Amino acid sequence: MNEEPVTYNLSCPVPHSRYDSIMMAHGGGGKLSQQLIQQVFYNAFANDELLVSHDGAMLSINGGRLAFSTDSYVIQPIFFPGGNIGDLAINGTVNDLACCGAIPQYLSVGFILEEGFPISELERIAQSMKKAANDAGIKIVTGDTKVVERGKGDHVFINTSGIGLIPDDRNISPLNCQVGDVIIINGTIADHGIAIMSSRAGLEFETTIQSDTCALNGLVEEIFKASKNIHVLRDPTRGGVASALNEIAQSSKTGIIIEEEKIPVKEDVKAACELLGFDPLYVANEGKILVFVATDDAEKVLEAMKQHSAGKNAAIIGKVTSDYQNKVRMKTILGSQRFVEMMSGEQLPRIC
Amino acid sequence: MNEEPVTYNLSCPVPHSRYDSIMMAHGGGGKLSQQLIQQVFYNAFANDELLVSHDGAMLSINGGRLAFSTDSYVIQPIFFPGGNIGDLAINGTVNDLACCGAIPQYLSVGFILEEGFPISELERIAQSMKKAANDAGIKIVTGDTKVVERGKGDHVFINTSGIGLIPDDRNISPLNCQVGDVIIINGTIADHGIAIMSSRAGLEFETTIQSDTCALNGLVEEIFKASKNIHVLRDPTRGGVASALNEIAQSSKTGIIIEEEKIPVKEDVKAACELLGFDPLYVANEGKILVFVATDDAEKVLEAMKQHSAGKNAAIIGKVTSDYQNKVRMKTILGSQRFVEMMSGEQLPRIC
Repeated sequence: MNEEPVTYNLSCPVPHSRYDSIMMAHGGGGKLSQQLIQQVFYNAFANDELLVSHDGAMLSINGGRLAFSTDSYVIQPIFFPGGNIGDLAINGTVNDLACCGAIPQYLSVGFILEEGFPISELERIAQSMKKAANDAGIKIVTGDTKVVERGKGDHVFINTSGIGLIPDDRNISPLNCQVGDVIIINGTIADHGIAIMSSRAGLEFETTIQSDTCALNGLVEEIFKASKNIHVLRDPTRGGVASALNEIAQSSKTGIIIEEEKIPVKEDVKAACELLGFDPLYVANEGKILVFVATDDAEKVLEAMKQHSAGKNAAIIGKVTSDYQNKVRMKTILGSQRFVEMMSGEQLPRIC
Repeated sequence: MNEEPVTYNLSCPVPHSRYDSIMMAHGGGGKLSQQLIQQVFYNAFANDELLVSHDGAMLSINGGRLAFSTDSYVIQPIFFPGGNIGDLAINGTVNDLACCGAIPQYLSVGFILEEGFPISELERIAQSMKKAANDAGIKIVTGDTKVVERGKGDHVFINTSGIGLIPDDRNISPLNCQVGDVIIINGTIADHGIAIMSSRAGLEFETTIQSDTCALNGLVEEIFKASKNIHVLRDPTRGGVASALNEIAQSSKTGIIIEEEKIPVKEDVKAACELLGFDPLYVANEGKILVFVATDDAEKVLEAMKQHSAGKNAAIIGKVTSDYQNKVRMKTILGSQRFVEMMSGEQLPRIC
């Protein structure tokens, strides 16, 4: 049962330690992204709020606590099965705020448009953003629009930044991950990345797979109603579940073990991953959340999640251990154990 | 003295009322930008906070007031005389917050990097951002990095979003512009746009003109110390002083008159404008602020501004009138009057 896990990672070549120029993998959400952030940005900007490595910053203002988060969206194609860059940009920042334990309140939106981009498409995107913001109960309160010459952008890039209120009784942080915590996910993994891949020119295959993009703040409120012992929330976007869990294990200096057979993956997503040579653990999600909860409350939280439309396929997938600190292991379907590394290459560029 | 002003505007062709696709001028900060924002974004996102058309949103949170602002920076070239895209991105958002009457507190930073961009240049930019943030007393607390393929971006684009605290006794808004208000500017206009133009390949000319990019929050605090009767603050960036004044006249349904001979312009900037066929009133600034103050306090505020390093060349340039509502007029050096329209074409693309 406790035999030494083997390091075995299909999808990720080991990168060199330092590069002179930006590569696509620097934006992949894996090891190279982490290196770039540490080498360039933490080095320059280091402060207590930034160094928590959370989905957003947690700030004290006017005697209360705020979460503040930003994300730029460069997804390609901009319209894809299940969504478009507009609703993705709303949901993504709403989810980052929710993963700080915050109730999302206000959003800013910054557009970088390429000369020649059809205004009708911009209108379609803006209408999707309106709907997504209404669905999530968040207000778009300020914005900015820039235009670059043809060939200096790619249709449209969108930045959203968001502000949320953190109720006093919540304390969510990757640093709070505790030995014994149970790890729950709210549904099937890898849907978003495979939907994007299936819609790219030259790589189309027969599928009805849709992106899982959705706002998770409603689900998160149900989770908090069910338990006062929620420790970590994380949306496994770029880099997938594998990278998100590795970040949390490293931040909290704990070990994480997950069970392959418990991780929900749709059959057609699994088939597409096999066809393309992808490991679903590394494929991006846009409507999934990892919940770290004290053991005693795990079943209660699982039941509450299953009652919510965004958590119907919720499942307990693993737990936090004191051994193998900073590492993520997986008990495979064959019964052996292997290490699950942080993503190091780039599986799918520009999936968000 | 009160003869009918003539409509006379060197630099701006009148645009068609509607376009099917994005043109460079949609990002110019003039009439077409306004049309796009109204047609696409206000139409989709309309709410009370957004419709104020301020430099940022003013929000009530935790019993206090916050300003929240966002800007994406796509300036080309990324390094220019007097600054680079990094310090520009910090100063620009700091200034938008200051123009809401806020004390800037926290910034988010989102990078969109083009594959192949030298990491050494990114480090140089990050170090400039660090220095600019320190100088302005603002903290960078959260960030995001995306990468796009070579030819799908242009070196680096940066979004900064910021949060500031608005003290209870301040009420700054373009809607508060009042008949009789005196208009002060903190120094010479058009430096930034001409510095950018002078550094562009193929358009270089002999000049030592530097961008005026700097943080104005320190100056703004001195302005508030000098008077409790500050009504409007506005940084005249894209579209220049002409477009900023037009926006304020339209928002507040007042008239504005300025005097050409009182507007500070450096001799070499004036010469460059003549050479290039630009009207300095439409050229972008990145370290200038327009202050609308009650008549009785105008001299006091002017003196306070002159004591500050960012206000040494401050000057009273005009006032707010009850006639010619929604219009900006200028008394020319020749003694006649002309209307100063909002910019309608695009003078200098990608100046911020």
